[in-house]
Amino acid sequence: MKRNTIDYSVYVITDSVICPPERLLFQVEEAILGGATVIQLREKKADSLTSYKTAEALLSVTKKYGVALIVNDRADIMLAADCDGLHVGQKDLPVAVARKLIGPGKILGVSVSTVREAKKAQEDGADYLGVGAIFPTGTKPDADAVALNTLHEIKESAGLPVVAIGGISKETIPQLAGTKIDGVAVVSAVMASPRPRAAAEEIRAAFEKIATQK
Amino acid sequence: MKRNTIDYSVYVITDSVICPPERLLFQVEEAILGGATVIQLREKKADSLTSYKTAEALLSVTKKYGVALIVNDRADIMLAADCDGLHVGQKDLPVAVARKLIGPGKILGVSVSTVREAKKAQEDGADYLGVGAIFPTGTKPDADAVALNTLHEIKESAGLPVVAIGGISKETIPQLAGTKIDGVAVVSAVMASPRPRAAAEEIRAAFEKIATQK
Repeated sequence: MKRNTIDYSVYVITDSVICPPERLLFQVEEAILGGATVIQLREKKADSLTSYKTAEALLSVTKKYGVALIVNDRADIMLAADCDGLHVGQKDLPVAVARKLIGPGKILGVSVSTVREAKKAQEDGADYLGVGAIFPTGTKPDADAVALNTLHEIKESAGLPVVAIGGISKETIPQLAGTKIDGVAVVSAVMASPRPRAAAEEIRAAFEKIATQK
Repeated sequence: MKRNTIDYSVYVITDSVICPPERLLFQVEEAILGGATVIQLREKKADSLTSYKTAEALLSVTKKYGVALIVNDRADIMLAADCDGLHVGQKDLPVAVARKLIGPGKILGVSVSTVREAKKAQEDGADYLGVGAIFPTGTKPDADAVALNTLHEIKESAGLPVVAIGGISKETIPQLAGTKIDGVAVVSAVMASPRPRAAAEEIRAAFEKIATQK
């Protein structure tokens, strides 16, 4: 998995509250079949052994399709299971520290909500930026809201792939037209769906529509 | 800090519920002055950035006194802050995986409650064993109880330093006489004390009394 050739267009994030462990592998495989291009394992409640086993299990699915598996926050789980990359927020390990820990070969994503955070993340070794929350979201109710012009400004200034996150759905994606983002990140839109393949297809179609309008 | 020359006799574990962050450095330094020989950072609730900063701050204290700082569960925090070692439980990263991740130079401790777990931990690369819960404890109410003869048997069979944990206090330590353990681990007995130096001195004195009876 080469750091610089990742397709970020349909970035699907797991949630063990929304999608229970026994359904997770099915849901992720269906999401990939529907067009998910990146999978992020986000697990804030499980013990480390469970997270490690989940990462290994997910990797067996993502590898089959050549899709990147990125682990949220836990650099140790990512390294132990040899996943493709790490995603850190502003309350996780500092970006430069995370980059040093995971080495130059792994993907490093960073959540930012301001131009300043975006520049700092880029300087410190980020490969891509997650920008949000763009729209109100129940998955992360405490997230700072980011205006569309800030999203646009971050994309213009950062020189890194930008993925929009927070309240992304087929209904809200059209509002992102003209922002030149590289992808959209979803949690519940795919993970909570009883038809994850169709849900991912719809997100992909909606994103492709705004992407061609660039 | 050499892996094989650690004095495990008075092993003090932090707890941010019992001892709030603003008091933590004071409490740990006083504990060391009272005779603590190992400090473990156990942080189950803070975000990763806070845990990393806490590890760095604690390291500035432990290094001053040549005392080992061991991080519970989070190999990434341990590596990022370059602490002396990692402690894993049975629900954390598998011991062999943890050893591979942290490398041969760092201390690796493992919580066990049976002879079988102890042997496995030893085979997989543990440097010392934490055995418990020996006595009932409010800090970890879900811990399995370990009989004194099991503690004794683990010490006899493992060939590794053994630290007893769970409900350890100056009142309960005398009951451990004859078990040939290498140390006692305490949380609340020191971390909850308004006089942590005196509390550590008392634990140390009680342990030295049973250690000389070996």
